[in-house]
Amino acid sequence: MKTLRDIGEFGFINRIAIVGDDTAVLKHKKDEHLLFTCDMLIEGVHFKLHSRAPLRVPYMAGVGWKAVCCSVSDIAAMGGVPKWAVISAGLPSRLPVKAAEGIFAGAQKAAGKYGVSLVGGDTTRSDKIVIDVSMIGTVKKKHLCLRSEAKQEDFIFVSGALGGAVKSGRHLRFEPRLKLAQWLVKKFKVGAMMDISDGLAGDLGHILKASKAGAIIHERLLPVSKDARKREDALFEGEDFELLFTMRPSEGKKLIKAKPPVKTSFIGQIIDERAGLLVVDRKMRARKLQARAFTHF
Amino acid sequence: MKTLRDIGEFGFINRIAIVGDDTAVLKHKKDEHLLFTCDMLIEGVHFKLHSRAPLRVPYMAGVGWKAVCCSVSDIAAMGGVPKWAVISAGLPSRLPVKAAEGIFAGAQKAAGKYGVSLVGGDTTRSDKIVIDVSMIGTVKKKHLCLRSEAKQEDFIFVSGALGGAVKSGRHLRFEPRLKLAQWLVKKFKVGAMMDISDGLAGDLGHILKASKAGAIIHERLLPVSKDARKREDALFEGEDFELLFTMRPSEGKKLIKAKPPVKTSFIGQIIDERAGLLVVDRKMRARKLQARAFTHF
Repeated sequence: MKTLRDIGEFGFINRIAIVGDDTAVLKHKKDEHLLFTCDMLIEGVHFKLHSRAPLRVPYMAGVGWKAVCCSVSDIAAMGGVPKWAVISAGLPSRLPVKAAEGIFAGAQKAAGKYGVSLVGGDTTRSDKIVIDVSMIGTVKKKHLCLRSEAKQEDFIFVSGALGGAVKSGRHLRFEPRLKLAQWLVKKFKVGAMMDISDGLAGDLGHILKASKAGAIIHERLLPVSKDARKREDALFEGEDFELLFTMRPSEGKKLIKAKPPVKTSFIGQIIDERAGLLVVDRKMRARKLQARAFTHF
Repeated sequence: MKTLRDIGEFGFINRIAIVGDDTAVLKHKKDEHLLFTCDMLIEGVHFKLHSRAPLRVPYMAGVGWKAVCCSVSDIAAMGGVPKWAVISAGLPSRLPVKAAEGIFAGAQKAAGKYGVSLVGGDTTRSDKIVIDVSMIGTVKKKHLCLRSEAKQEDFIFVSGALGGAVKSGRHLRFEPRLKLAQWLVKKFKVGAMMDISDGLAGDLGHILKASKAGAIIHERLLPVSKDARKREDALFEGEDFELLFTMRPSEGKKLIKAKPPVKTSFIGQIIDERAGLLVVDRKMRARKLQARAFTHF
């Protein structure tokens, strides 16, 4: 009998066919849509508890911070603004109260910083810590960015620097690019946009699939984080939560000259679907990449 | 060091102070509000997996059904109509694909029946099955029912029959009282309303606390389910998901004569806060009850 490990998450999602974009767009008002997203963090999968870790309140606060910021990042990448969130928490009975409070304090801190009201939740007993945040945002119709809007010749950009997010612990204190995303959608005409959670190659693969397009990426243009061990990490590691987006070349040229609130790097261009995803190395040699995504099972 | 078991869930919720009603009311439009709620189900806490259970697709479908119906019930009890949901699922790698599909099929079936669009989700690896559903509904301002609206002399009603929901397995196939709740808010002026998840005594305790009121309940008027082992189960067991609501006496008298789509039973009245929660037994003897709620830790 086939198990989930045999088919992998994406196979499963395709089979159940209810999950499309990371964030759902709900038509509710004339001039703006609602955005609705959720992100689940599980002890041992998304964060580790070492023997003494439950007592380390700052670490637990990082878990709460990340739980909220993942959803903020999702909504920001659609061109939207986060508004309300609910938190479901499964917590072990043996967990020190201070550790549990640390999680919620981290969540509150993130919510406060990004203008989100924590309006409710559900707590229950669980062997492992499970935190699930669901968030509602709003997006002006004209600001809505979808994965499917990349067009041939579009310039491809990423924000910040990529790689080493998990090993360095940066994934528990990252800053979702809400300010940058709002700046972009207000000043430019953005094509496709999403946040990088599964790694640049995997997430670019999602854009290319949704947009029926290919891409060419120049390795020497990749902004590599000081936390990365090697250049490849910027391509394949996940949990960076930087923005990945495309623009028509005329718009892209304007962005290159502009002063965004966070660094953005031009890394390549959208090309014909049949060319696939090409990566050009420092010796100008192109290799075709299989969209390699983070496997959840 | 204090653990969560030492203080219990409600103590914890009071300490973190972000969680009020089960469902949040969000002001968004002139004539209607958004409702936002979440419910998390965890293997071993809310449902058991016996050795062969993962293969029993109907059982898994019941888990998916319940995950959606808990939130439908929350929104119905506020006088609202459910609209959109996202599902986060933590699933073990060793889980047969058919079992995982069963969960989502059950969720889809419930969503279809109650008019909910499943618009997204997040799946991740987990040792135990975790299903968290977040749901958005809408409620017309004039239909909104809060816990805090019970007034002295109000008649108290419950729908259906209570007790034995978990032991009988009824909690995995219950029908949220959406139709009844809509019928009530359209035809009557409802006072306080909520759904019974923690048990009648515990949930009535929530209404009394929020409304600063007391109540007198007549044991012989309680609608006891055939699944209950003893009359007390109707008072203290949880997971019935029936409606518990109050109305001014004049409205209550009209309801008693009316033909609701689901049976409703008059069980007692709201009294002064200082009297507490009184239960009158068959010998007309009253005892004062401590609001005994389901403990999650």
